[in-house]
Amino acid sequence: MKLLRYGERGAEKPGMLSAEGHIRDLSGVVEDIAGATLTPEGLARLQELDPTSLPIVEGSPRLGPCVGRIGKFICIGLNYSDHAEETGMEVPPEPVIFGKATSAVCGPNDDVIIPKGSEKTDWEVELGVVIGKEARYVSEEEAMDHVAGYCVVNDISERAFQTERCGQWIKGKSADTFGPIGPWLVTRDEVPDPQNLRLWLEVDGERRQDGTTATMVYGVRFLVHYISQFMSLQPGDIISTGTPPGVGLGMKPPTFLRPGQVMRLGIEGLGEQRQRVVAWAG
Amino acid sequence: MKLLRYGERGAEKPGMLSAEGHIRDLSGVVEDIAGATLTPEGLARLQELDPTSLPIVEGSPRLGPCVGRIGKFICIGLNYSDHAEETGMEVPPEPVIFGKATSAVCGPNDDVIIPKGSEKTDWEVELGVVIGKEARYVSEEEAMDHVAGYCVVNDISERAFQTERCGQWIKGKSADTFGPIGPWLVTRDEVPDPQNLRLWLEVDGERRQDGTTATMVYGVRFLVHYISQFMSLQPGDIISTGTPPGVGLGMKPPTFLRPGQVMRLGIEGLGEQRQRVVAWAG
Repeated sequence: MKLLRYGERGAEKPGMLSAEGHIRDLSGVVEDIAGATLTPEGLARLQELDPTSLPIVEGSPRLGPCVGRIGKFICIGLNYSDHAEETGMEVPPEPVIFGKATSAVCGPNDDVIIPKGSEKTDWEVELGVVIGKEARYVSEEEAMDHVAGYCVVNDISERAFQTERCGQWIKGKSADTFGPIGPWLVTRDEVPDPQNLRLWLEVDGERRQDGTTATMVYGVRFLVHYISQFMSLQPGDIISTGTPPGVGLGMKPPTFLRPGQVMRLGIEGLGEQRQRVVAWAG
Repeated sequence: MKLLRYGERGAEKPGMLSAEGHIRDLSGVVEDIAGATLTPEGLARLQELDPTSLPIVEGSPRLGPCVGRIGKFICIGLNYSDHAEETGMEVPPEPVIFGKATSAVCGPNDDVIIPKGSEKTDWEVELGVVIGKEARYVSEEEAMDHVAGYCVVNDISERAFQTERCGQWIKGKSADTFGPIGPWLVTRDEVPDPQNLRLWLEVDGERRQDGTTATMVYGVRFLVHYISQFMSLQPGDIISTGTPPGVGLGMKPPTFLRPGQVMRLGIEGLGEQRQRVVAWAG
């Protein structure tokens, strides 16, 4: 299934993309694509529906973040060996974990706002993993049972805030609109091998990132196991698994986003995002 | 006002501590001590109530975390000059921000669980600031208008996970039960000077921390302003403002928590917490 949320910011309704490409309204069935809806039982209930029995949503509504009420947004740093190289850092012997403020989350095609005072706003296409079942000290063998599905994430990053402003990356990862997720959550049954997906990102039509999840250092199964040793994970939590090479910081010279530019990005089987870059206008 | 949440874990009800020390039930008035209840309008509505008109809660129910549905939990590192010294680090030229997983939050007197494999679980009494109004690029002058109130936080930390396991402190701050908050949220009007509060912590009756918020490097007003330059803050977000000297890591030799020990901690005017330390028993 492809589950999504559509409508005005803060008032999104749950929906499902049907095989013919229509958005079907799920608001008569579930309250939101969040929490209990994402559990194995919740998803099984949706699987039993006949999508053609659901109302078609007319027009082209805005898409919201594909998951609501996200409890936490955990990101993995330097998880592609060739990306670590371009940033001048070493592949770490254990995953680097950092947080993104959940208030940064936005829809897949919403404008991305360059923060006040920013000169180094950068892009990062990433495979997002949506948790569907509480995970606490889970083994690698059990880890995938805790995954509801996957989505595209743009882990937008302000490099000066991240690394030149006194430590801890969360400072450069958390501005409003720095977390577009979607267009939809694709359930795990439709993604047989999350370690073999192409992912790419373009700025103004120029291909900047072009990689494959096959070159991740730590795969999805290991990451769910690993993170669950340090904190428990709940349905609706998101893990963003790191970015392949091709970020602005790694270009020679380093090149960052400017107002007026357009990012397009996607992952094989998970859909595409498109964001216009705008200046803060407060 | 002193606002609190009482009852079983995950099913807490909103309450208020009345002047005579009774818990009064607020569940007929507000849904939770969370989100909209914490806004200036929400708090004004509660101020108008006659507490003696609310039902008294009989017995001694468990206290839950004093804020529900916490959006994010932002911590400040090395924010007391003498604590920075004991950890062997320098006072940073700007605040160090890191995150604690919201799943770590628990009630003020709940058992604290030493995580699997942990040998360096440590204590940190801290002044918690509860946001009551969205804050985005706020000035220092306006910052206090965005504060709903204050609470005691024990920012429990696993030092090996925090600093010896590949970067980013969130890894050592986020285990379940690593975030006792409460006993209550004391509204801002009852705390005229948050930079002049004594705070202390004892382990098995021995005083380990004994400080005052007067020696914070960056005060509450500056922190709300500062964080709002990097991310927006929403009602129900919590800022934990750093710890005074006396943590286990700073003792000679370093000394950490063991199952069976009891922590007691408090802040002048904000009440006390008491936690039994237990081993993980999964």
